[in-house]
Amino acid sequence: MAAASTPQSFLLQHPLYPSLKTLSYIPSKQHLRPRPRLSTVSCTAVHPAPASVSVTKDQGRIFNFAAGPATLPESVILKAQSELYNYHGSGMSIMEMSHRGKEFDAVIKNAESDLRRLLAVPDDYAVLFLQGGATTQFAAVPLNLCAPDDAADYIVTGSWGDKAFKEAQKFCKPNLIWSGKSDKYTKIPPFEGLEQNPNAKYLHICANETIHGVEFKNYPTPSNKDAIMVADMSSNFCSKPVDVSKFGVIYAGAQKNVGPSGVTIVIVRKDLIGNAQPITPVMLDYKIHADSASLYNTPPCFTIYICGLVFADLLEQGGLVEVEKKNAKKAGILYDAIDGSDGFYVCPVEKSVRSLMNVPFTLEKTDLEKKFIEEAAKEGMIQLKGHRSVGGVRASIYNAMPLAGVEKLVAFMKDFQARHL
Amino acid sequence: MAAASTPQSFLLQHPLYPSLKTLSYIPSKQHLRPRPRLSTVSCTAVHPAPASVSVTKDQGRIFNFAAGPATLPESVILKAQSELYNYHGSGMSIMEMSHRGKEFDAVIKNAESDLRRLLAVPDDYAVLFLQGGATTQFAAVPLNLCAPDDAADYIVTGSWGDKAFKEAQKFCKPNLIWSGKSDKYTKIPPFEGLEQNPNAKYLHICANETIHGVEFKNYPTPSNKDAIMVADMSSNFCSKPVDVSKFGVIYAGAQKNVGPSGVTIVIVRKDLIGNAQPITPVMLDYKIHADSASLYNTPPCFTIYICGLVFADLLEQGGLVEVEKKNAKKAGILYDAIDGSDGFYVCPVEKSVRSLMNVPFTLEKTDLEKKFIEEAAKEGMIQLKGHRSVGGVRASIYNAMPLAGVEKLVAFMKDFQARHL
Repeated sequence: MAAASTPQSFLLQHPLYPSLKTLSYIPSKQHLRPRPRLSTVSCTAVHPAPASVSVTKDQGRIFNFAAGPATLPESVILKAQSELYNYHGSGMSIMEMSHRGKEFDAVIKNAESDLRRLLAVPDDYAVLFLQGGATTQFAAVPLNLCAPDDAADYIVTGSWGDKAFKEAQKFCKPNLIWSGKSDKYTKIPPFEGLEQNPNAKYLHICANETIHGVEFKNYPTPSNKDAIMVADMSSNFCSKPVDVSKFGVIYAGAQKNVGPSGVTIVIVRKDLIGNAQPITPVMLDYKIHADSASLYNTPPCFTIYICGLVFADLLEQGGLVEVEKKNAKKAGILYDAIDGSDGFYVCPVEKSVRSLMNVPFTLEKTDLEKKFIEEAAKEGMIQLKGHRSVGGVRASIYNAMPLAGVEKLVAFMKDFQARHL
Repeated sequence: MAAASTPQSFLLQHPLYPSLKTLSYIPSKQHLRPRPRLSTVSCTAVHPAPASVSVTKDQGRIFNFAAGPATLPESVILKAQSELYNYHGSGMSIMEMSHRGKEFDAVIKNAESDLRRLLAVPDDYAVLFLQGGATTQFAAVPLNLCAPDDAADYIVTGSWGDKAFKEAQKFCKPNLIWSGKSDKYTKIPPFEGLEQNPNAKYLHICANETIHGVEFKNYPTPSNKDAIMVADMSSNFCSKPVDVSKFGVIYAGAQKNVGPSGVTIVIVRKDLIGNAQPITPVMLDYKIHADSASLYNTPPCFTIYICGLVFADLLEQGGLVEVEKKNAKKAGILYDAIDGSDGFYVCPVEKSVRSLMNVPFTLEKTDLEKKFIEEAAKEGMIQLKGHRSVGGVRASIYNAMPLAGVEKLVAFMKDFQARHL
């Protein structure tokens, strides 16, 4: 059957990842072959003395400052690659596995368990792995927590909070109790002055505004004792410790700090589950997913698997206390570079609420911004363009951005400034 | 910084996939390193003469008869593995890329273009890459096509169609015009006898019932000229040619024939877009996604990328005419084995509507079913257990199941029968 093709060698070996196998492979007829045959391969690896090597795009990784999907830990990428063909000797890729099989059952349970450890999620909270991004949760939150005539309070500190507020108008009576729009979303209000609605079912915030770089450093208390806090933590999820017990619902798209795009994590207090409006699509009903441990229908298995690898990596780093220290250091040197540039670079965000994750800035000479972004890309630092709605420059420095990436960016900024004074 | 660790070699090479690079790698400190260093590696590959090798789970792939997520083309897994670390020299994994960057833009456009070629999708249809599975579409279809008081007709030939019908009750007035439940979902009705509602906005079918193995071989015509056909094609999508112009909406979860779980493909006639009910969550509104080419929010990028690889593979095989021939051959030998077993194996589905994708059968001696499934698994044929709601055995033989897998199953069935007469 395979007479027309010549077997070719396929070598995948790594000392840390013994599941990488040596395989032979027949090009173009491969879908006709039931399985690979073994080849014998001998290898000799000669390591150069460790040295600072100038890396080009052809040789290795670049520094990716994208706002999401975003850079992932290199160790996670390598592990995923090593396991992709034959997951733990199962004879299948993780992408091919039944979501009800024992391998994926262990994957999703471990991912949930590690996430619970990372955030010290109390037992009276459900952890759900869903689809549709934070944008789906903009609808799911009011559909699950409100009747159509119920009030809910929204503090809007950026574009994402604004989208959440607008979507809620379809499903409840949301009140915009504070908006930073007139200040171009550079501030967070003092909490004592907020005029909360005493009947609001919840108080909603976006904990970190990805586009504007505004981050809550602490949280307001809903003034009605029955009201609950709801937070979109998409872009600072697992970047620092959070007291989950202060929230009724936390939700986050994974594609910033904890995985590829395609999975949304919802952490919801269990007593809030089970009251969805009759018009709630089944896929937006928290009860459906909580009752079936996120397996009501087929979940995004591979994406959850990668999140699990990231959670394990964060635990190995020492958990979120250590992760926050690293993030604070990275953000610190970047903001210092901006503030120490004598106005060449400007970050418009009020200092006390600057994001550790997304650092937006402009150049005093705005006509240089395009050149700045292009030259940085040539140096292996990409995706530095600000969101299309605000322009300027934005460096997203999530958990997986190495300190060396930020140091390189800061060095480039100083050099660029020196060349354009 | 890396003084505490010793570099180790990481070798990934394949003649077909030159993007696989030779890398060095420092264990456990890797998240601190900005990028890998080069190593020099020499390799010699010695190919054995092609031979029929008995493959164990430790050596290679097994035959995975899961109903979804399901087996993928081996060539696709290998290509994905080869490109995972550094996609096309970009210095990033495809999982890390901005969905608005040039690399992913090419990925999603190529995926759409190849899918349009495969199914000859007319220009007046939008192709959307969404999230949430077919279950989300059970709500999206009536939300987009109906006002709350509009009628819609449902033919229910299995559990999935039944779920679609029940979900629609939240959003319109669906009529159950035929149900196969009393026959345990083993039939499809003659079309001429259907009592369609003249005011129905659409006629809904599930083109292939994954659990029951019942597949439409042709399609009824909606009796009202304004009505449209809507089909859930999750489990036979891209398994054979389909005349898209006969449908208003076709939707399919990818995780059977075209990719991993986590993306849902919707093909919708453009004139049907733009009339969503006011209570439609933004993520369920076809107009939002059609207007932004599936990039309204962050799509499941990696999953779409894999679908693109599968589409390219299907085109390379000669398109869906050729794919259908292979599927018919595989299903033919399996049904022949069942029907030729003198009643040892029984497929309850009416012969004219038996699925080419999901082949359910029982053993006359039902107490042997558990043993059958266990012994098959030991022989490297897994996930043969019928759906938990119906029991028995089910072999899902999607596009990517090799003929050799079905041949092996048939040989096993004959041997098992001989041992248990």
